[in-house]
Amino acid sequence: MQSVPKGFRIGTAAAGFRRPDRDDLGLIFSEVPAAAAGVFTTNVFKAAPVLVAQSVLEHGNPVRGIVVNSGQANACTGDEGIENCCVALSMVGQALNIPATSFIPLSTGVIGTQLKMDLWAQAVPALVASLGAKSGEDFTRAMMTTDAFPKFIPLTLELAGGTVRLLGMAKGAGMICPNMATMLSVILCDAQIEATAWSKMFPLAVENTFNRVSVDGDTSTNDTVIGLANGASGVTVAPHEEARLAEAVEKVLGQLAYMLVQDGEGATKVMHICVRGASSVEDAEQIARTVGHSQLVKTAMYGRDANWGRIVAAAGRSGVLFNGDDLRLWLCGVEVFSKGQPTSPHMDKELEAPLKERDIRIDIDLGAGSAEYTLLASDLSHDYVSCNADYRS
Amino acid sequence: MQSVPKGFRIGTAAAGFRRPDRDDLGLIFSEVPAAAAGVFTTNVFKAAPVLVAQSVLEHGNPVRGIVVNSGQANACTGDEGIENCCVALSMVGQALNIPATSFIPLSTGVIGTQLKMDLWAQAVPALVASLGAKSGEDFTRAMMTTDAFPKFIPLTLELAGGTVRLLGMAKGAGMICPNMATMLSVILCDAQIEATAWSKMFPLAVENTFNRVSVDGDTSTNDTVIGLANGASGVTVAPHEEARLAEAVEKVLGQLAYMLVQDGEGATKVMHICVRGASSVEDAEQIARTVGHSQLVKTAMYGRDANWGRIVAAAGRSGVLFNGDDLRLWLCGVEVFSKGQPTSPHMDKELEAPLKERDIRIDIDLGAGSAEYTLLASDLSHDYVSCNADYRS
Repeated sequence: MQSVPKGFRIGTAAAGFRRPDRDDLGLIFSEVPAAAAGVFTTNVFKAAPVLVAQSVLEHGNPVRGIVVNSGQANACTGDEGIENCCVALSMVGQALNIPATSFIPLSTGVIGTQLKMDLWAQAVPALVASLGAKSGEDFTRAMMTTDAFPKFIPLTLELAGGTVRLLGMAKGAGMICPNMATMLSVILCDAQIEATAWSKMFPLAVENTFNRVSVDGDTSTNDTVIGLANGASGVTVAPHEEARLAEAVEKVLGQLAYMLVQDGEGATKVMHICVRGASSVEDAEQIARTVGHSQLVKTAMYGRDANWGRIVAAAGRSGVLFNGDDLRLWLCGVEVFSKGQPTSPHMDKELEAPLKERDIRIDIDLGAGSAEYTLLASDLSHDYVSCNADYRS
Repeated sequence: MQSVPKGFRIGTAAAGFRRPDRDDLGLIFSEVPAAAAGVFTTNVFKAAPVLVAQSVLEHGNPVRGIVVNSGQANACTGDEGIENCCVALSMVGQALNIPATSFIPLSTGVIGTQLKMDLWAQAVPALVASLGAKSGEDFTRAMMTTDAFPKFIPLTLELAGGTVRLLGMAKGAGMICPNMATMLSVILCDAQIEATAWSKMFPLAVENTFNRVSVDGDTSTNDTVIGLANGASGVTVAPHEEARLAEAVEKVLGQLAYMLVQDGEGATKVMHICVRGASSVEDAEQIARTVGHSQLVKTAMYGRDANWGRIVAAAGRSGVLFNGDDLRLWLCGVEVFSKGQPTSPHMDKELEAPLKERDIRIDIDLGAGSAEYTLLASDLSHDYVSCNADYRS
């Protein structure tokens, strides 16, 4: 299948977990054991698939694939949830004659309901039979819940030894409507790279991308990003080329992260909140997150309102201590606040057109140092409320 | 004027600061110097009236009154804003032959615009002339912006020496629509009490009331709560009676705080989020605030959805470490989550009626200690978005 990195095969099937008319089961199979790295939710309540996936990675099992379902998150499901997750992986493993512990599970959907094991048993044969016939887009669609569009990014990279391929796929942003909870992403790579090098570059790329976006500030019970590098291209990544591969991984994840915000529930805007001139990265991050999570800033952006006072007030209540007279604020590239006061009485007119754009830059300079942090965040619209206030049934 | 504590007179006037058809200037005058205590916003960007009021209290001036305006917040207005605030107080002081530094200023309205000094000059004579002819409700209405109803609570307390009166008044909740920013409250008391005792009980009462409510998590540049005790009742508060007065103050502020949430922008619900069984009050507070600020919890309550998964997930991402298996959750008094799993498949039906009520109890027991914290929070509705996304003009 075009754009799928070498040595990986993708399958999907319709198990009927929640909706009858779509694929809701996805499988990635690597013909050879792959180096695997993962980043998981920090929520105290970790879903069963998160606990199982962490266990797979901690035991350093040779990883052969990924199994995803949408419809049930298998979160808050107790011991039965863990057991169901393992049984589901066993079904796939038996069909492929591979140990179940070589597969990483991903689930998304309703919290607090058990996996429907009878439907799994019915669907797994078709899932395995479809291996190689499905694309990255098919896999992405199988793990979608309320996403408006599938999010996948293929990329090729020329190294000294030849071409390597990457394919990134993601679903969801924040806690997803109607009552769900998941950001899942998978990146496949056919480069030959040391497992330790892969395990090192991967979390860093996640930190610089997925960890810098926010739709509603809620961290789910299921958030998982998994990277597999199987070496099937036969192209070895030389130590001096690792930085370039890391850059390519970050580029793919960065584009997916942008798409998550763009497709945030009810989102009409992508705010690029860049805080610089901070004493520390932590300070910059705290201010960026306070601004990005402020309901008042989010609704102002939705309303295309040059309401700089809300941004300044959010920065001021972030808990970071700074000299307010030193703060400068630019909205869509126009300086609107400096030395404790607005810069111009005409900014509303000047900002009328830029605020209609989808991408809105918010630049804050604290004038206190050289640290910076950028967060992508969505706005808060009527559709967000509709999406999340609708009853689950 | 009935219900106004002895020795206080109230005046209001229509200055036309923002809307032509209403009073937007209020004055409280105490015939004798009053013990004054205040609690102010923690925002880095403090409005000019906050800075001036803090200065009045820090210098221990004998306080004779309070001057409030709505329409302009006088926040982010630089040195000119401070000067305008002092000039406005001087106008009132000269008319009453009292030093300007004996008055505490309060402002609410648009951020970043200067006070309209010509309108102040025109209106102050009428304001002063109306002293004694206006009520607590009139004063409350003069400081309202988008409040749906005036919030004032009179209370009498019988002490050994006789009856003392309290009158609490408040406006706003959180950052108020369309682009505003203020919770203001004043409590008047005619008891004779030591300034130090008053200054001690007052912030504690604020901490237990106003600091435990949230509409949207935004702390404004102008938030101010002022308490004046002028002794005009002639009733001295004996040391052993101070606790009873403190209780009365807390009762008044508590009722006002409830009204602020009830009248939160677009609010249809008042969530009573009680976290108990925590290792520390800080832990309990952090979880209560994470739940109360969660857009997903707020929209679920607006949608009358028994979506316990969002509450559990919010607690889990709060940053507080606890054993998830020990957490128990009750919604409207019905236990919905325990030992890592939902307690019953029938809870949706059981909760259908209770979730239609205005007051919604959310009880969380962490099973880790004996500390607790209760937060009142509003829901998140379509009207909240409409209110805050509408352009300012």
